[in-house]
Amino acid sequence: MKLYDYLDSGNGYKVRLTLAHLAIPFAWEERDILSGATRTPEFLARNPNGRVPVLELDDGTCLAESNAIIWYLAEDSPLLPVERLGRAQVLQWMFFEQYSHEPYVATPRYILKHLPADSPRRAEMPDRLERGRAALAVMDRHLGAQPFFVGRRFSIADIALYAYTHVADEGGHDLEPWGHVRAWLDRVAAQPGHRPITALPAIA
Amino acid sequence: MKLYDYLDSGNGYKVRLTLAHLAIPFAWEERDILSGATRTPEFLARNPNGRVPVLELDDGTCLAESNAIIWYLAEDSPLLPVERLGRAQVLQWMFFEQYSHEPYVATPRYILKHLPADSPRRAEMPDRLERGRAALAVMDRHLGAQPFFVGRRFSIADIALYAYTHVADEGGHDLEPWGHVRAWLDRVAAQPGHRPITALPAIA
Repeated sequence: MKLYDYLDSGNGYKVRLTLAHLAIPFAWEERDILSGATRTPEFLARNPNGRVPVLELDDGTCLAESNAIIWYLAEDSPLLPVERLGRAQVLQWMFFEQYSHEPYVATPRYILKHLPADSPRRAEMPDRLERGRAALAVMDRHLGAQPFFVGRRFSIADIALYAYTHVADEGGHDLEPWGHVRAWLDRVAAQPGHRPITALPAIA
Repeated sequence: MKLYDYLDSGNGYKVRLTLAHLAIPFAWEERDILSGATRTPEFLARNPNGRVPVLELDDGTCLAESNAIIWYLAEDSPLLPVERLGRAQVLQWMFFEQYSHEPYVATPRYILKHLPADSPRRAEMPDRLERGRAALAVMDRHLGAQPFFVGRRFSIADIALYAYTHVADEGGHDLEPWGHVRAWLDRVAAQPGHRPITALPAIA
């Protein structure tokens, strides 16, 4: 399989991290999201929504949306519970991540890291940071009672939420108030098979 | 099981529609999202993220996030493919719905229907409508080649995207340009077991 990706993308990192934990070999091709390389006709044929990551299977079928990709990869693995309720709880946290967390933790990082300092999008920062703090508060409360997001086991729900939380400071968030979140970040990083967001995949 | 919900919520409607298709009886309790009834300590104990819908199982366990709830309900039913790739494709479209569609199709409807005419949030409308049109264009292109979102079968991916698309006009969207989307809306509404968003559930 082949992953179309952008190294600095937390959404891409979710997939790289899942592949690393499952020891699945893959080809890797970077697409520069800042120069429009995900909006070409050739790329839009792979994902009409024009975003990385995209996983291309060996038969050419393409799968988009980071959390759908890591679900696909993790089926029948220790990264996904076998029981119906646990699986739905993993999805609950992955939908929380995309709706209530990513726009307010990842997008501020994108604005600060990749847009010019005089970008009009800087005006969005106060509202986005406030909503991001609300998401971090929900996570901190949950992680005060259990070591990982679902049950007592590391799962793709943790991978989905780790990806942008561990670099939240790059988007202007201060994690100091969220002790349970910080302890959980350490637990995730201590998992065997962990690799950092900056690690270039070996090209298969 | 018991559904905490708000009748006008498309996210709640996804759950009601899935329950109707699967002929599952349920208790129903409305929470007025406009008066803060989802932010009380008692409700936050059910969903720390303070949103409806929430499905309370018979043992008291609560599940949040509309798309996680309908996945839970649809497991091992005709509304969810059995093969691994098809299941991941259902999730791809459900994550598309929450990230690229809901904020730009549902939120404009919320702003126009539920906030005062002089709300400062009206300033968000042009950008939200532009992004909503981009999402509708992606859907229209996909539905030009197949009758439902995944494979040739009606699934919870269709339910997830139908919920706010069929009332997109209430948020200022014009569906006229999207003929494939309109034909698909008709196909979804013609499914046996369909019910409208305005239908109050029978109280169990």
